Order: sequence, then C-alpha cells, then structure tokens
Amino acid sequence: MTEAVGYLGLGLMGTPMTRNLLAAGYPVVVYNRTRAKAEALAAEGAQVADSPAEVARRAPVILACLADAAAVEAVVSGPGGLLETVGAGQVFVDMTTSSPPVSIRLARALAEKGAEMLDAPVSGADVGAIEGTLSIMVGGKRPVFERVLPIFRVLGRRITLMGDRVGAGGYAKLANQIMVATHLASMGEALVFGAKAGLDLTQLEEALSGGAANSEILRLKASKVLSGEFTPGARSTVQVKDLDYIADSMEALGFSLPVVQLVGTLYRELIDMGHGDEDHSAIVRVFEKLAGVEARA
Amino acid sequence: MTEAVGYLGLGLMGTPMTRNLLAAGYPVVVYNRTRAKAEALAAEGAQVADSPAEVARRAPVILACLADAAAVEAVVSGPGGLLETVGAGQVFVDMTTSSPPVSIRLARALAEKGAEMLDAPVSGADVGAIEGTLSIMVGGKRPVFERVLPIFRVLGRRITLMGDRVGAGGYAKLANQIMVATHLASMGEALVFGAKAGLDLTQLEEALSGGAANSEILRLKASKVLSGEFTPGARSTVQVKDLDYIADSMEALGFSLPVVQLVGTLYRELIDMGHGDEDHSAIVRVFEKLAGVEARA
Repeated sequence: MTEAVGYLGLGLMGTPMTRNLLAAGYPVVVYNRTRAKAEALAAEGAQVADSPAEVARRAPVILACLADAAAVEAVVSGPGGLLETVGAGQVFVDMTTSSPPVSIRLARALAEKGAEMLDAPVSGADVGAIEGTLSIMVGGKRPVFERVLPIFRVLGRRITLMGDRVGAGGYAKLANQIMVATHLASMGEALVFGAKAGLDLTQLEEALSGGAANSEILRLKASKVLSGEFTPGARSTVQVKDLDYIADSMEALGFSLPVVQLVGTLYRELIDMGHGDEDHSAIVRVFEKLAGVEARA
Repeated sequence: MTEAVGYLGLGLMGTPMTRNLLAAGYPVVVYNRTRAKAEALAAEGAQVADSPAEVARRAPVILACLADAAAVEAVVSGPGGLLETVGAGQVFVDMTTSSPPVSIRLARALAEKGAEMLDAPVSGADVGAIEGTLSIMVGGKRPVFERVLPIFRVLGRRITLMGDRVGAGGYAKLANQIMVATHLASMGEALVFGAKAGLDLTQLEEALSGGAANSEILRLKASKVLSGEFTPGARSTVQVKDLDYIADSMEALGFSLPVVQLVGTLYRELIDMGHGDEDHSAIVRVFEKLAGVEARA
C-alpha cells in the first residue's frame, strides 16, 4: 500500500497540490487552521486531522505550503505542532517561500526528535500547482531528497536539489525573487521613463520585448502596468515578505547587496502608499509619483 | 536610378550596414575618420568621401552609427561637418545610441539649413547589423520616416516610429538600456547571493531560467559570469555611456529614477576597479567584492 502523505495549509497552493496527490493514489491527511477548507477536501478523499501533531502521527512524510516563516514555525514548534509527535524516519517538507535561517533552525529542532527536513519552495504560482508543473527547488540530504522524489514528481516538473543542506532550496527561491522584484522595478522605471519622454507606450513595450531588454516579467506583467489593472497575481505584501527574507538571509550570511536592498525600500514605500494588496507590478506607482506621470497606454 | 545613401562611421555596426545597402543596390558614399576602413569598402563598391560635408554634397539621405553623442556632434557641427553643405530636402538619420537632448539640438541646427533629421538607434548588436535583422527605434516626422523606410527595411526587421519628434528613438533605446543594465545587475546579485549561500550555481542558473526570473540577459550572459570569461560583447564603458545619457535625459526632463541611478553608480565603480573594457556582465564583480565570494560554476 502507498504510504500516507500529510499536508499542512490548504491555500491557493496546498489545495491543488493535495488534489494532485489524491489523484496519484496517495492517501492524504490534511490539516488547515480554518477547518472548513480541510472538510471541503474530505469529500474528495482526504482525511482531516485536528492538528499538525495528529498529521505527524498518521503520515511519515508531511508537506506544508504556508503564508510565511512565522506560520511554518507555528505548525512545527507551536501548540499541537509537529515536534509534539514526530519521530525517527519521518520527513517534514516545507514548500513555503520561507526564511532560510528559520528553516535551518527548525531542521535542527526536528533532528533532535530524529526527524529529517527538506526545504522545497516552488515557483510557477497557483497555475503550476493546479497543473502539477511547478518548479521545485530543494535543500537537504540527498537520500532524504530521493525518498521524497516520487511525491515531488506528482507536484512539479523541474525538481532540483540545490544543495545538500536545509536552506539551499529557500536560498535558491530567494535568488529567484531578487531577480523578480528587480525586474518589476526595472520595467516600471523603463515605462515611466518612456511616458515622461512622451513615447507611445504600446510601441515601447513592443520594442523592449523584441530584444535584450526582454524578460518573463515584461511578458507577464507589462499589460497590468499599461492598463492600470493591478488585480493580483502576487500581492505586493508577499513581495515585501520575500524581500525581508532576502535581507534576513544576507544579514545571517554577513553581506549586503545594494540593488535588491533599494528595491526593498521602494516596495515598503509602495505599501505605505496603500497599495499592498495590489499586484507586485504596482511598484511602477512609486516611479510614477517621482516622475509626476502615469505609465498607461 | 536609386538615389545614393551616405554613411558616416564604419565601425562594428556601420560596416555591415553599408554592405547590406550595397547588396540591395544602393550607391553608398562613405566617410570614416580613419580612412583605411572606408578604402576597404571601396573594393566592394562604396564611394569614399573626405568629409561628412562631402558626403552631404553627394547623397540626399545620410546615415550615421557612431561611438557617442560627441562623435555625432563632430560630424554634424564640427569642421567639415554636415552643416557646411547640407540643405533643403536632405535627411540626416542618426543610428547612434546618443543623448536625446543632443539629438534635439542637432535637429534644430539642421532645420535651420532646411534639412530634416531622424534619430534611429538600433538594438541587435553586430550580429543584427550583419544579418539585417536590427530592431530600429525611430523618432521624427512621419513623412520623413516614410521617405527613409525603404532604407530601414534593408537594415532591420522591426522598425518602429516611437514618436513624431526627434529624440523619441533615443528615449526608447535608453528605456531599453535601463532594463538591460538593471537586469545585468540583478543577475549578478542573484548569482552572488547563491554563491554566498553555497548553492550549485549551474543548477541555480537552470532554476532561474525556468520561471518568472528568466530574462534575455540571463540567457545571453549567465555563462560569462559563471565562466569568468568577460570578453565583450558590449563593453562596460559603453554601458556607462548609455547610463550617463539616461541621467542627462532625466535631468533634461526634470525627474529621477532611483534604481537605474544606483546601477549607474555601480557601473562607475566597476570602471574604477579597472574593468571598463570587459563585457558589461562584469558588473557582477562589484557584488562579488561586497560579498567576498566569486560567482563561478
């Protein structure tokens, strides 16, 4: 019989991942802080648990995809957390975009109980979770990675062991987020520069996308800026969370990078301007304010 | 008979563009400060002139692709420059990546002689010039643009009138360069972050290129960083020239953008470190110095 998989956190990512595991024939034991979301999945075959500790009693491998590092700490070390019941031979796989220094600390606490951990954040957003095409960046021991690999293959397409220590997955995801946040700022500046210079922004976007300035961000997000339609997508508050984890990681590793640091400051300014719930491409608003012009086509 | 085309500046871009014009059946009158480069093209059918003024006596449409705005000013207003002979019905087409405020000034001087101007910088590098697949961003009056269009079609593939005033082409190219320079800095920071965190950088590059962090710059330049082989490509000094024109343009338009301004500072630091003749992807060296690590795979 296929062994059970635990899943903590049934949000935009966790719900479709759980569905894919069920479809692949895994018994799945789920926990969610708001129980109603877990009950909804019970109709599709999931078993509902009352706490992370109960999930750890019933499933040897426990996945999670949560809002932030604080939420991961809560399901591991909080009341009813994994640490209360987890033991030798079990693996906690954290797919949250979290803070690597926090992941490293939690891995140590789990190791004291004999349990293993992988940090395995994903990219590809909710669409990738639904279609099972996520890119999964994993940190941890290779034998543990190989044990979980069949499960990863249900959830994603590009699965990479980024390093043999917990934290390597998170660091890779944060390196990714350095580029995402900076590319969004860069696109915002280029479009505001064009607007201020009186260019036709539809034609500018076409010219930019045709050459060395092109980026996945330009392809995915230019239309949001040019239309002024900032429905998320990924919220600016989430981008700030990632930028904070990047800052925490640099502090833990004892260095600092100036461009992403500045981009972090600009995103905090965007939140202060009241746009935290808008798509992260709304960073253009900070540059629009500086230039006194809107970058709409 | 097809009317003659003048070409000023036979560098990496001008030489192949002249060859494509000759191949398309245009008589081409060329001028280059170092005459030997012009003589070399005479063997292929070009007519050699002794000065820009002489080119303007023999060709109604005069193209140029030069090193910088100062070189453009020299061929227009310097001794033996276009202004000495140019007159009504003639068009100067500047394909240099130049300073739009300078282009606007030169257009005014030419207009006083009855001549028209377009600014029409290109992207696509020497390969695009050789293959005739350049992207050409044009600023100027539409009837003038349409007169020159058959010539542009010989040189490039994506030809766009970015605005109906001289300067619009240059502003579009500089918007492009905002993104190129910032994407190079962003890639450098992400790879240095990964190196400092102990990641396998070959796998990191693969993960980054698979998702929202992907960019044309990552595709073209990551291998230079990971191998430490910074043969240009585009020199860092040229990137600094473009960043200076971006700063000049923002000053002329009365605003400032913080990310590209910081990237400009970092590029000047790279030059001060002695790496001006390296490919512009060498900006990673500034971050390597800050982190005390090399981003090599």
